[in-house]
Amino acid sequence: MDYRTDLAMERTIHPGGIGEGVTVQTQSEGEAEITWVRIHTPTAAKRLGKAEGTYWTMTHPEMPYLTPEERIDVARQVAQTLRLMLPPKGTVLVLGLGNRRMTADALGDRVVSGILVTRHLQEYSAGALRSVCALSPGVLGVTGVETAEFALSLVERLKPSAVLVVDALAAMESDHIATTIQLTDTGIHPGSGVGNHRKEITQETLHVPVIAMGIPMVVYASTIVRDALKTIFATEKEDAEAHALADSLVSQTQQDLVVTPRNIDELLAGLADMLALAINCALQPSYSIEELTHLLH
Amino acid sequence: MDYRTDLAMERTIHPGGIGEGVTVQTQSEGEAEITWVRIHTPTAAKRLGKAEGTYWTMTHPEMPYLTPEERIDVARQVAQTLRLMLPPKGTVLVLGLGNRRMTADALGDRVVSGILVTRHLQEYSAGALRSVCALSPGVLGVTGVETAEFALSLVERLKPSAVLVVDALAAMESDHIATTIQLTDTGIHPGSGVGNHRKEITQETLHVPVIAMGIPMVVYASTIVRDALKTIFATEKEDAEAHALADSLVSQTQQDLVVTPRNIDELLAGLADMLALAINCALQPSYSIEELTHLLH
Amino acid sequence: MDYRTDLAMERTIHPGGIGEGVTVQTQSEGEAEITWVRIHTPTAAKRLGKAEGTYWTMTHPEMPYLTPEERIDVARQVAQTLRLMLPPKGTVLVLGLGNRRMTADALGDRVVSGILVTRHLQEYSAGALRSVCALSPGVLGVTGVETAEFALSLVERLKPSAVLVVDALAAMESDHIATTIQLTDTGIHPGSGVGNHRKEITQETLHVPVIAMGIPMVVYASTIVRDALKTIFATEKEDAEAHALADSLVSQTQQDLVVTPRNIDELLAGLADMLALAINCALQPSYSIEELTHLLH
Amino acid sequence: MDYRTDLAMERTIHPGGIGEGVTVQTQSEGEAEITWVRIHTPTAAKRLGKAEGTYWTMTHPEMPYLTPEERIDVARQVAQTLRLMLPPKGTVLVLGLGNRRMTADALGDRVVSGILVTRHLQEYSAGALRSVCALSPGVLGVTGVETAEFALSLVERLKPSAVLVVDALAAMESDHIATTIQLTDTGIHPGSGVGNHRKEITQETLHVPVIAMGIPMVVYASTIVRDALKTIFATEKEDAEAHALADSLVSQTQQDLVVTPRNIDELLAGLADMLALAINCALQPSYSIEELTHLLH
Repeated sequence: MDYRTDLAMERTIHPGGIGEGVTVQTQSEGEAEITWVRIHTPTAAKRLGKAEGTYWTMTHPEMPYLTPEERIDVARQVAQTLRLMLPPKGTVLVLGLGNRRMTADALGDRVVSGILVTRHLQEYSAGALRSVCALSPGVLGVTGVETAEFALSLVERLKPSAVLVVDALAAMESDHIATTIQLTDTGIHPGSGVGNHRKEITQETLHVPVIAMGIPMVVYASTIVRDALKTIFATEKEDAEAHALADSLVSQTQQDLVVTPRNIDELLAGLADMLALAINCALQPSYSIEELTHLLH
Repeated sequence: MDYRTDLAMERTIHPGGIGEGVTVQTQSEGEAEITWVRIHTPTAAKRLGKAEGTYWTMTHPEMPYLTPEERIDVARQVAQTLRLMLPPKGTVLVLGLGNRRMTADALGDRVVSGILVTRHLQEYSAGALRSVCALSPGVLGVTGVETAEFALSLVERLKPSAVLVVDALAAMESDHIATTIQLTDTGIHPGSGVGNHRKEITQETLHVPVIAMGIPMVVYASTIVRDALKTIFATEKEDAEAHALADSLVSQTQQDLVVTPRNIDELLAGLADMLALAINCALQPSYSIEELTHLLH
Repeated sequence: MDYRTDLAMERTIHPGGIGEGVTVQTQSEGEAEITWVRIHTPTAAKRLGKAEGTYWTMTHPEMPYLTPEERIDVARQVAQTLRLMLPPKGTVLVLGLGNRRMTADALGDRVVSGILVTRHLQEYSAGALRSVCALSPGVLGVTGVETAEFALSLVERLKPSAVLVVDALAAMESDHIATTIQLTDTGIHPGSGVGNHRKEITQETLHVPVIAMGIPMVVYASTIVRDALKTIFATEKEDAEAHALADSLVSQTQQDLVVTPRNIDELLAGLADMLALAINCALQPSYSIEELTHLLH
Repeated sequence: MDYRTDLAMERTIHPGGIGEGVTVQTQSEGEAEITWVRIHTPTAAKRLGKAEGTYWTMTHPEMPYLTPEERIDVARQVAQTLRLMLPPKGTVLVLGLGNRRMTADALGDRVVSGILVTRHLQEYSAGALRSVCALSPGVLGVTGVETAEFALSLVERLKPSAVLVVDALAAMESDHIATTIQLTDTGIHPGSGVGNHRKEITQETLHVPVIAMGIPMVVYASTIVRDALKTIFATEKEDAEAHALADSLVSQTQQDLVVTPRNIDELLAGLADMLALAINCALQPSYSIEELTHLLH
């Protein structure tokens, strides 16, 4: 059963999601819903198809259409969580994954272009600015270099205290497209995502903490069809049989298709700005979030 | 039953498609399949939800991945059909519909940017070049002007002998995305398309022949789900009941979502170049298609 | 003597600029300098190579690098002047001249993309929004249609009460690039500008008031060389002789070259946003400038 | 005397350019002129302000406007010279320097996007494809990482047999903009270039051969003014005095301005494609240049 979702939260709301080795906490704040998923054991990790660690998710049904004030609010909350996950000191290397020439896969690159980079200003800043650098590795088919290899090269030379990886995600439910932010301390694991451009990028491979941040921009067409079919079959058949039948009806063609909002190009810019703001806010506490907002324009 | 397809051909392959007032001719050429659909009567037009007139469709499963020679071949065939539909003389006004900032809706604008415009060179060309002009009207939400109004303004002043409208289409079947070209002498009718930006643009409204050309870039997510559901229900229920049930299960959210290839940005450029080449070839017979190919680069 | 400048203000600061038939008023506001030039007679118009009418110019040496508050301030002043020049009621048609694919010529198109268009919302807005539409005509070499012809087509059909034309300008002095805004009620006259894409677009040709707004993005290389040469020769020779000698030394090649800031792509976005804000502010007095600022992001 | 040119050839055509330690060979091929400059001694290197090594330059006055056949011809000649400079085997790492968001500085990034990358296909290609990877490091102000540091990180991990660096250059003479290709085995040295984004990237720093390739996209405005002035003064004064006087008249503002063709955006695409073709041709001898041409479209 390949669910092709990057959201740990989605796995927990499906049958068998929660259980031994998994803790889920949710809280509502206005229209926003925040979920902490913690996966404690290798068995639970295997059952959910997600690595052991912590996943923070914020879902807001109006996320692409927030007012400026609401956006600052969301960014501030993301920044707070990000600060909890990052070490308090040292250079942070931000990597924007994905293919900037494919709208559905361009989130990482766009976020990176909004990051306040400061590593080269350290001698002038007298400690007022945390050292940050930000790069877009591109994708294997365009560069000939695995993103994981790229990350390792830079980490070895720049010696950051942590790596923050930003990427466009894939969800299982279309309601989560462009409305959900996930932050996790587990890094990036291959096997889902929009562009399949991902060998493992984790603390194990890079030897520094790796935080991953993303927003789902697509659902695979196969997922949406399979899901619709399962709903039907479930009323008549055993669960496993329903799933197998649904899988058999998903055509090969649909594997390469994605479901996405018509106006994804437009949504992308706003969401990327919001994540860049959150990152800048988390990394530069000596600036107010309002000052940082102005830097993006 | 809202099928939301711009392809007349797709309507004829569904139950009840062919029948009185409709002629369908198909022919295969290698991997390509060409279909002529002619709708002769108002009743047939109503039944199929498509205007009376002629629709030419070419489907090639490898269309986005053709070799340069194969692309020239496809463009040449489109050009021949286009020449049949256009009046032999006079200025042709090419309009590239849609929103250039939304990849799935940008085909028209991209094609227009490849058109060999010559209207302003008439005094130098001594009759060697057919007069062509090409504009992108943009979309109502961005300009405040209906595309149909824009077209009428320009037609009244420029007095072209025909208008050629290029637009991104919506299909019912995902196999037709990026693989099918439709040419029709019926112009543009509201109600489908990617961006819903379309009041009627037809010979009735503009008083000159209006040819419409397009390639499906999306299937509405609602269509793909409905289709999957119908397949299932059809085995157990009456046709009408299956359809109604399928419709009831398509959620509102899915109405705004589209199914599209992950690499649509990449496909767009190649398809737009091919259509521009076909148009240039149809309109400038004094140049060879090879010479025209070089103009695009 | 072809000075190739669009700024009337620049003509008045050169020898013989002011004189009979020309009134010049300047005032300083902080670092900004505001100049009103009024050309009252055909003789003065001929002498300066600028049409009879009013030209308002604001120069701020830090214009591309203002704080958000300062930018709002500049936009507000531009809006006030614009409101003086525009009729109080009726649809305003905003035209963004130039070639969006040439950075130095893309200002008009970029400004248009930030305009709040409302003409299609009139029935819902109950008088709260002034009717505005905004289009980019493109350039003759790309469309086959003169900008002036395009403007006339739209004016005849949409019947606006005024036309506002936005365009990238050429200056004589490099200090004015990206630092000077000109507003004039004389419309657009051929013969200067970045892209040479301009037949006359004026009240005489369109039969409604035509306001032109722009910012210099380049100086012609020939201008800068000629200027440097004149300075030298002026110490040794008579004025006319110095000019003639300078002109003779400007090579043909240099005619096609422009002088521009290295980071023009970056400056463009900020300046276009500021002009769009000024226009939105002038046309929608029921919104505060702060509310309108948020619309751009 | 800061000439701010990246072209060694330009240094040799100025007074004192050729002399001890410098060999210059030129040959004409149709309209093209090819120059080999070899700098043999540290003294000559210091005199010319260029590193010891070999510089190959091809100038063609119509370079941006060649026919497809002529472009293939130029690319083939560049490829031949490039093959002489590169080691015959091993991975080649192509680095596209500069800022992709500044047109005048975007050549490197654009060329990289046309490179046939093959490093990740080595296991499938059975030796038919030479291993190539291609990356754009971005610029210090955007990434926080020096290009030289980036290069070193990747070289240490990927262990290429050579690095090929592509960058937009600055020339002294406006006739060389967009018409001249330079290839050199001396790598990149700080101090000129469009974006000043360059610490040394050479065999000394990377421990593998470093070939640099580029095309001038600008002349600094200060250069063009200084040049015009020198011509004048030279008729009346001693050489050194003329230079000093010219230098004193170049204003500070002009230091940040560049002279560039109005249509640089348009020229960029064609020139980048041509260089990418040349590189692909040099690195993949098992493909014909015609096959490689098709890969770019």
